[in-house]
Parts: sequence; structure tokens; C-alpha cells
Amino acid sequence: MDIITSDHIIEWFKELQDNICSGLEQLDGTALFQEDNWTRHEGGGGRTRILQGQGIEKGGVNFSAVDGQMPDVIARGLGLQPNHFLATGVSIVLHPSHPLVPIIHMNVRYFETDQGEWWFGGGIDLTPHTIFEEDAIEFHKGLKSVCDRFSSTAYDEFKEWADNYFYIPHREETRGVGGIFFDRLNNQYGKSKPDIWKFVQEVGDSFLGLYRNIYLRRIPSDYEESHKQWQYIRRGRYVEFNLVYDRGTKFGLQTNGRIESILMSLPPVVHYQYEYSASQPFEKNTQALLIKGIDWINYKTA
Amino acid sequence: MDIITSDHIIEWFKELQDNICSGLEQLDGTALFQEDNWTRHEGGGGRTRILQGQGIEKGGVNFSAVDGQMPDVIARGLGLQPNHFLATGVSIVLHPSHPLVPIIHMNVRYFETDQGEWWFGGGIDLTPHTIFEEDAIEFHKGLKSVCDRFSSTAYDEFKEWADNYFYIPHREETRGVGGIFFDRLNNQYGKSKPDIWKFVQEVGDSFLGLYRNIYLRRIPSDYEESHKQWQYIRRGRYVEFNLVYDRGTKFGLQTNGRIESILMSLPPVVHYQYEYSASQPFEKNTQALLIKGIDWINYKTA
Repeated sequence: MDIITSDHIIEWFKELQDNICSGLEQLDGTALFQEDNWTRHEGGGGRTRILQGQGIEKGGVNFSAVDGQMPDVIARGLGLQPNHFLATGVSIVLHPSHPLVPIIHMNVRYFETDQGEWWFGGGIDLTPHTIFEEDAIEFHKGLKSVCDRFSSTAYDEFKEWADNYFYIPHREETRGVGGIFFDRLNNQYGKSKPDIWKFVQEVGDSFLGLYRNIYLRRIPSDYEESHKQWQYIRRGRYVEFNLVYDRGTKFGLQTNGRIESILMSLPPVVHYQYEYSASQPFEKNTQALLIKGIDWINYKTA
Repeated sequence: MDIITSDHIIEWFKELQDNICSGLEQLDGTALFQEDNWTRHEGGGGRTRILQGQGIEKGGVNFSAVDGQMPDVIARGLGLQPNHFLATGVSIVLHPSHPLVPIIHMNVRYFETDQGEWWFGGGIDLTPHTIFEEDAIEFHKGLKSVCDRFSSTAYDEFKEWADNYFYIPHREETRGVGGIFFDRLNNQYGKSKPDIWKFVQEVGDSFLGLYRNIYLRRIPSDYEESHKQWQYIRRGRYVEFNLVYDRGTKFGLQTNGRIESILMSLPPVVHYQYEYSASQPFEKNTQALLIKGIDWINYKTA
């Protein structure tokens, strides 16, 4: 008998949302989350929480649990027969004001159908406007320690998955310094449901500490107008990724999701400039590091 | 014998680009176009021209003529066998600084394969940040007179096509006040190649006059900070349309086109705000008019 019920998962995701929101309000220091409860016509709903503060210029921490008859286009995409489904999870995107503080994204999710299919997915990835190698190293080491408790090969596998997923083909660059990404983890992955669920919970629980460290390290730094301009340009690439490639965004648009909750991931202010080319050393250094396959665990800084 | 050769069409499109660029430099009054000549690895190339002026904050007037072996994904999309193709045209997007001056887009294009398939496509559409009914009426009447010289049913047909094409399903709104859109016009359309070509030329030639009138009417107006904020929000919708739905953008990304030329259509500065809702009368009036099926020719202003 399966003791990990969907109700249990849903409740845990809600608590995760609560904990992360409290932590982020403390971190920002000024703003409180605005909450919108919504229901989906075809079944289920969610709790969207948005922070528009001084430190976090625009951040969303969303919980949702949607269910109902699976749209055909989604069933085809997943290789399933259309039937009743439940999809629940927590999704986070934070856009800080300070150009030296990175954008961060996290998602943990669970999916099941009434035909007995189920899987977990998720990931965390970091998108610095200006890359600081020590932040990327620390971030990846933190993720590796979470993964290592699950399996000795998980970090390498999920890190490569993130490199490939958070990639912008038309720019030939990664979105940021990556992180971990995983999808459709179920019995076929060679782990039990309780083991996978424990891992997903640890990923969720790791989020706040990982971001807080980097946030607090960078927030006291002075910056130049050039950093701010570069931030606006890099945010443009974030939009390009999310609107052209991101599967979560597409899933949301195709399942008649709540638009304002899906598109909370878009940055508050963005610039698109024709042929902007990296000229400052920090820009060139960042651009050079937006590639797949960097071994951040064994990375040696200059 | 076909006297309308692809060389002739290409030369005419280049001249159209020249004429429109001269006209827009005069209209802006300060800035000159920056030109980038580029070649495509698989065949052909183009002339990208970008204006970053005081009146036109960011504008692109692009000519291209690309040819070579058709990528499989494109052939499938077009319902053709993959073979050698030529695609040529002029594409324009103008983002004015002044929030009461509308965004405008035009495209005229020709496509042929070495198997004898050919067609023309194109269109012009207007995206006001704040809609002024008299501008929309004048714009549509101008387009109707161009269409009427081609066929008595063309305006109605191409206007409806634009309403359906320039539509953002996830926002349930049109991109702007529409215009005309047409694609794959060839012998099956019941018109000769010279007739279709003449129509496409007249569409191209109409662009400058149509935009100049509206531009000069609106540019002297004072505006409020609220108009500027609304402009940034509306530009965000423009990005959503272009990156999620626009077929020209997708075609460019799939054929390994020149990214900076394709994405010149993105506005210079954009805001994404969670749950921005129209509150000012000019915002509400605009929102109410972002729907399909408005008969601008017989529209009665209040």
C-alpha cells in the first residue's frame, strides 16, 4: 500500500510555499507577499504569491494542484492515453533589484493519472546577470550534497540535464550557470517512491539556504550603471528562454492555466538592444561562462 | 514565359527598403539607419537596417533573400517536398518613443522553389499603445483602398486574416487594431502573378504614407507618466506575441536566420508587472478595443 498519497504531497508543497515565503520576506526586509487564490475551471487551482520589494524587485512563489481530464495535446506530448490527471507543485522565480544578485528558479512537482502512472520532477538553477565563480561553485556544491544523499550518480546526471534544458539554441548560450533538473522520476528510475519523494523534499528544503547565502554576499556590493544595463539585457535572454523554450510555460498555456501565475516568471524591466555586445570585462567573463559542461565542483578560480 | 523573375522581385524589395529608410530618417529628423550586411551560411543573406533615434526609439527595416536546401521542419510545415528554395522580402517593425504614437509592422515577401511552386505573402498592422479610433479608421481605410484596386473582396478577407493572425490566445486579446495579412497568394487564388505582384508592391508603397500621417498627428501631443507606463506594459504583450506565436520569428529561428535581425522586432524597454490591470480611461478604452471583428471602415466614433 502506498502511504505517500497525493493529499500528503499537496499538503507538504503548501507548507514548503509557506516556509519559503516567510524566509524571503525576512531576506527582503521590507515587502510582504501578496496572495491570490485561484481555481481552474476544469479542476483544481492554486495559491499564487507575489513579492514586489526593494531587494526582490519581482518574485513569485506559486503553489498549484490542478486536476481533471487531460487535454489531448498534453497526453500526446507525454506519450499517455488521455485520462484523469493531477499535477501539483511549487514554482519559484525571483528577480532581484541588485544587478549582482542572481535570478533564481526552483520547481518541485508531482504528476499522477488515475491509470496508476506517477512521477516527480523538479530542479533549481541560478541565472546570475554577472557571474561570480565562487557563487556558482558554492551553489553547485550545495546541490551536489543534496543529490549525493539520494544517489551517487544523481548530481552528474541532473546537472547535465539542467545544462541541456536551460539552453538557448538561437543564442548558443546557457541561461545561466545551471543547477539540477530532473523529470519523470518513478519506479523505472530504480528508486522507491518514498526515496524519490524524500529527495524532492530535500531539494525543496535546500532552496532558501542556497539563495540566502549568495543574496547576502552580493547585496552589500556597490555597482555601476553598466552592471544595471547588463542586467536589463540578461533579463531579455531570460524572457527569450521562457517564452520560446520553457516546457512549464508551454504546459501552462496549453492547459488553460492562470496566465498571471505562469508569466510571473517574466522580469519587471527588460531592455532589448540591437546587437548589444559584451564590452566590459565582467560582461565578457560572464558571456564566456554561459556554456554547457562546466565542472563547477572541481572548478579552479584564477 | 514568366517576366516577373526572382531577380526583379529582389531588386524591387531592395529599392523599397531604400525608399522607406529615407522616409523614416526624415520623419525621425535626427537619426540615420545603421546598416549590417550579412550572409547566411546555407545560402543568401540580407541587409539589416536599424534606427535608434529620438522619435523612433528602435526601428528595423530589413531586406533579406535567403536560399538553399529547405530544412525538413520547414518543408513539413509548408506541406512541400524538401528542395531548393528562395525566400525574399522586406520586414519592418517600428517602436516609437512617444507613447501615443503606435507601433507598426509591415512585411512583404516572395517564396519559390525549384519545383515551380511560388507565392507572395505580407501585410501591415498597427499596434497602438493607446488606441485613437480616428487613427485606426484612417489606417484601415488606407489599406482598403490598396486592397480594392486588387479585388473587391480582398480587404474583408485580408482584414479578417489579420484579426485571426495577430491574436494572443492566452490574453484573449488582439495585438493591436489589426490591418491586413495574406499568405500563399498564387495562381490558385484566381489572380495572375503580375496582378499579385502589383498588389504586393502597392502594399509596400503604401507603408510610409500610412504611418507618416498617424505619426505626425500624435507626435505633438503631451502625455502623462501613466501613458508611458501603459506603453511599457503593451510592449510586453508585443514580446509575448512575437516569441510565442509569430510564424516569421519561428521560421527565422528554425532556418538558422540571423538572430539580431529576427529579434530586432522586440521593443527597447519593456515592463512585466504582475496583474497589471487597466484603470485609466484611456487604458480601459484601449483594452475594450483589442478584439477581433471591429468594422473600422464603418466605425462610428462617440
